[in-house]
Amino acid sequence: MSVAVASSTRAPREPLNGVNTPTLFATINAVKDNPPLAKFTFRASNRWISGTCNESRVEVFSGAGGEHTHKAEFPTVADHPNVLVGEDRGPLPVEFLLYGLVACITSGIGNIAAARGVTLTSVESRIEGDLDLRGILGLSDEVRNGFQRLRVTFDIAGDAPPEKLRQLVEQSRARSAVYDVLTNGVPVDITINAR
Amino acid sequence: MSVAVASSTRAPREPLNGVNTPTLFATINAVKDNPPLAKFTFRASNRWISGTCNESRVEVFSGAGGEHTHKAEFPTVADHPNVLVGEDRGPLPVEFLLYGLVACITSGIGNIAAARGVTLTSVESRIEGDLDLRGILGLSDEVRNGFQRLRVTFDIAGDAPPEKLRQLVEQSRARSAVYDVLTNGVPVDITINAR
Repeated sequence: MSVAVASSTRAPREPLNGVNTPTLFATINAVKDNPPLAKFTFRASNRWISGTCNESRVEVFSGAGGEHTHKAEFPTVADHPNVLVGEDRGPLPVEFLLYGLVACITSGIGNIAAARGVTLTSVESRIEGDLDLRGILGLSDEVRNGFQRLRVTFDIAGDAPPEKLRQLVEQSRARSAVYDVLTNGVPVDITINAR
Repeated sequence: MSVAVASSTRAPREPLNGVNTPTLFATINAVKDNPPLAKFTFRASNRWISGTCNESRVEVFSGAGGEHTHKAEFPTVADHPNVLVGEDRGPLPVEFLLYGLVACITSGIGNIAAARGVTLTSVESRIEGDLDLRGILGLSDEVRNGFQRLRVTFDIAGDAPPEKLRQLVEQSRARSAVYDVLTNGVPVDITINAR
């Protein structure tokens, strides 16, 4: 997620690229005047189905001083592929991290381009991550469990010079929530109820 | 993703909880004998649709000495909700991180329970993350862009004492690829092609 815009640009513009730019600027100004509005809590739940297969869905989230319900629960199955002893009924859990990063930077590009008056033609990206299973399988204490590195490539086209288009991607990365979490980490508390 | 099992348990067991346990142990033994088989690269792509809306899908992945195609591309739309100037056509990109973490630990629980001979009745989890939009909006340099903290609760039931069920969750967390990435971070390289 990223709704970053150029800090020098606060004047309303017309909606562009499908972004309601006046609403975007109104949001920024509302938060500037009342910082507690900026506090959000996002929620999801998950239910085990069988084997490595399970399903997640979004839950009510809090923010802007209220509670909000998504238009749908967006139920999404995760599984392991056959080669990792699953039945391949959905993306691998680690692939959700890949989805999250490219989606976050791309959403931000949409907003930032609108705020800067750039009409986008296309934004496409590819992402890959290296993972050595010896960590997960408990076969080596020197190998980490997670990705060792992620590589992302963005192809962006629009009605601005290449350098300005490049800056849209860079600004979105600089204010991306997912990029921050993936590169810097986040504390995680886990509670277990067993019965 | 987690396929961790108790290191003391390597004898074949019958399939359990929908996990093909003999295949799981065969995989572990194959990797132990030939570590390069453990090297995987997972891939996804994303295409901007409009505004904050875009769609990700999985791509061919490499591992176990070969290339593998998922049974489907699992196209998944991401968007911002209305309150964050999107049209709410899919989960927020940051919500994919929530999906990834609970899915990864839950997939691992399925495997580890099977390896330890525990029949699961249910595994349900809830996750939430706090995010202060002032970071993303560029309104404060002291506020990070990403989640400040994640909280997860697991409810697990099965045919084992609560302490043994609790250990399944703990072992899955200890070998979870997503947990590792989210808590420790990962280097990310970004290439931009603008035209």
